[in-house]
Amino acid sequence: MTQTEDTIVALATPSGAGAIGVIRLSGPEAITIANSVFKGKDLTKQATHTLHYGSIIDGDVILDEVVVSLFVGPKSYTRENVVEISCHGSNFIIESIIKLLIKRGARAAKAGEFTLRAFLNGQLDLSQAEAVADLIASNSKASQQIALQQLRGGFSNQLAQLREQLVQFASLIELELDFAEEDVEFANRDQLKQLIYTINKIISDLIQSFELGNAIKNGVNTVIAGRPNAGKSTLLNALLNEERAIVSHIAGTTRDTIEEVLNINGINFRLIDTAGIREATDTIEQIGVQRTMEKISQSALLIYVFDAAEISIDELNNDLERLRKPGVEMLVVANKADLLNDEQLLSLPHTDRAIVISAKEKQQIDELKNKIYNAAIKEQLTGHETLVTNIRHLEALQKTQESLTRVLNGMENVTSDFLSMDIKQALHYLGEITGAVTTDDLLENIFSKFCIGK
Amino acid sequence: MTQTEDTIVALATPSGAGAIGVIRLSGPEAITIANSVFKGKDLTKQATHTLHYGSIIDGDVILDEVVVSLFVGPKSYTRENVVEISCHGSNFIIESIIKLLIKRGARAAKAGEFTLRAFLNGQLDLSQAEAVADLIASNSKASQQIALQQLRGGFSNQLAQLREQLVQFASLIELELDFAEEDVEFANRDQLKQLIYTINKIISDLIQSFELGNAIKNGVNTVIAGRPNAGKSTLLNALLNEERAIVSHIAGTTRDTIEEVLNINGINFRLIDTAGIREATDTIEQIGVQRTMEKISQSALLIYVFDAAEISIDELNNDLERLRKPGVEMLVVANKADLLNDEQLLSLPHTDRAIVISAKEKQQIDELKNKIYNAAIKEQLTGHETLVTNIRHLEALQKTQESLTRVLNGMENVTSDFLSMDIKQALHYLGEITGAVTTDDLLENIFSKFCIGK
Repeated sequence: MTQTEDTIVALATPSGAGAIGVIRLSGPEAITIANSVFKGKDLTKQATHTLHYGSIIDGDVILDEVVVSLFVGPKSYTRENVVEISCHGSNFIIESIIKLLIKRGARAAKAGEFTLRAFLNGQLDLSQAEAVADLIASNSKASQQIALQQLRGGFSNQLAQLREQLVQFASLIELELDFAEEDVEFANRDQLKQLIYTINKIISDLIQSFELGNAIKNGVNTVIAGRPNAGKSTLLNALLNEERAIVSHIAGTTRDTIEEVLNINGINFRLIDTAGIREATDTIEQIGVQRTMEKISQSALLIYVFDAAEISIDELNNDLERLRKPGVEMLVVANKADLLNDEQLLSLPHTDRAIVISAKEKQQIDELKNKIYNAAIKEQLTGHETLVTNIRHLEALQKTQESLTRVLNGMENVTSDFLSMDIKQALHYLGEITGAVTTDDLLENIFSKFCIGK
Repeated sequence: MTQTEDTIVALATPSGAGAIGVIRLSGPEAITIANSVFKGKDLTKQATHTLHYGSIIDGDVILDEVVVSLFVGPKSYTRENVVEISCHGSNFIIESIIKLLIKRGARAAKAGEFTLRAFLNGQLDLSQAEAVADLIASNSKASQQIALQQLRGGFSNQLAQLREQLVQFASLIELELDFAEEDVEFANRDQLKQLIYTINKIISDLIQSFELGNAIKNGVNTVIAGRPNAGKSTLLNALLNEERAIVSHIAGTTRDTIEEVLNINGINFRLIDTAGIREATDTIEQIGVQRTMEKISQSALLIYVFDAAEISIDELNNDLERLRKPGVEMLVVANKADLLNDEQLLSLPHTDRAIVISAKEKQQIDELKNKIYNAAIKEQLTGHETLVTNIRHLEALQKTQESLTRVLNGMENVTSDFLSMDIKQALHYLGEITGAVTTDDLLENIFSKFCIGK
């Protein structure tokens, strides 16, 4: 808590021209420092959660006319005294005011330092603090909702409870160590086993949720692939409802991979258009095909498009065989339905993972979007909707599980002191998620990724 | 006042990633609309100038956790009810909240519409409203101080008083028209003359202040010119204290004009480095020299640099003769003092407008900066420090002066009705400055230049 003895200051709004900018101060001297440059009411005598109009003055010189927001600790974001100065949005004015506040005793805040203080002062646990950064970075309804859920407690509450129970067992086993010569068992092994099973089940579910959680947070990598002139670029344009890709009838037009973001039901799908899959005739095209195969391996969903009027069943099966990769969901799209007769249409596959469309005539595009969403998201949802999105949490969960598995395996044949060590390891990793256990490196690593002013 | 019957909403902070974003609502329904999406205290029952923590909700869905600032009209920027929602600085979240507020009855604000309302509701006069935009755009101490002075009343108070006196004369002359057959004089012609002299003097001073005011607001265009290899680029670097221009010993290195901003005593000087003045040997260089001459005509200050070790008195005088332009202040800088002996140094000119320096050795650079400031700013100050910076004000002042001159000229030989017409014209133009007289076009023209959210 020694870090919070000084008062920090930073611009909390983005820099650039705007109507207003908000400068944030936090720390024991926040109100007195603000008051020393404020001409208006005496800020030290005002109630918390009040707004005050006045001027920021440097001696005789007026720097700006402002509105000051007053939050008296602990009723503030950081639980310290917090003052927010809302000034005119000129970078020059903002810099002048911040410089003045520093001259009067504040210190320029480091990235994430306000949220770090909120964490250190017990306002947020660590996973909640991380959710603040996720919230600021959120760019879709789904990622926003996950971040908000995490900010409001999320799975860290649940983990904290389980950790509490595990702590009790750990202390009982510690007690056994004190009476080691008497060979007593204070910790009921069956109950401990049961608890570990419960925790491991929850942790397994959380670990499994990461892939989906990550997809929701960062978008679902989706490759559009198929033979040359199957209509991949036209399909991309139809999905995006705009002319993004260069469309032509010359096979092999698309050589570079093109990335576009399509939002379906609040989820961002990163659509990657690719060069046609075939025996390439020149080197540049060959590199394009190779890149397509790589992109498929790195993606979560493959949309395979074929020209329903041209391709044979053998060719189709051959392609599907070639492109299918483990862990990559696949949708088969028969394109150019507008060129087919009814009989031909009926012979095409109609399954959950297959659809007949016309990209050119924009037929069945909404239905295709539903199938994309279902394949990547809906079918992956398990019913319990707590999702892990943070790779740090994933790693801590995996390490917790490893330690708990060692506890289970050793329960019959190792001594209490080894058992105790493994339980402590599990407690350590669980604690890292919520911040019950932290190191300076861990905090530095988390908060340095925040923006200044948060 | 009919425009202010609806409630407007906009982001007041710059867009982009930041810790927080502030969404501003103003209008009769600002508080009820905010309350309809706010989960926390009942905002309609809270006092003005208070802050409230809670969530923004769309039905069951939480959009964000926010702090709401409440300003109950008329104690607000616009004199209407104003609510500011401070949310997490994600563009996605900001857009979601604004969309929701629009769904609940707010309307997206147009550029400058909050300040327009402040003007329409009598919170600010027109020149003060314009000062808000100037303040946001201010990028130096001087431009900030001018804008602040204008925001706090500035010369518009003074003009409003004079206008008031002129209005009295106008009504007396109107009265004369009513009694035209009786040939009475209610308006004392000597007093009227005296008043017009007074007003004209003030207006003349204000008109003359424009050149300086504009220089302070927008920066002083300053050309650095001289023969090839006189050390112009080295001087630019010495003034800026950095390596901006490509410096070499090959004459003619600088062909493009380079612009840099140097701040001296809070004034921005736009330094324009130029190609060397000589009989150019190739076409590209010829264009460079021509451009230099053009740049000098467009600037307020010319810094002529010469190599004191190389140039003859005749060549020097020849150059000065050639470069001197009416209305452009000139400073003569003898460079390369480090290569001269004492005798040579003594033979060089030492006046207010001349200085001996070494750009390479950074000798006398601060003294040169003082001379630059004095030549462009200090010597131009008249003592009365009210400066006109706005071209709209300049034009209105000029038209006022023309009308008043017509009044003076006509006083002896035209009838009261012509006199009355000219006085009314003068009143009209004076009123345009403060906004006592406005047209929709005028307002549209002024406020459309504001940023959204102000």
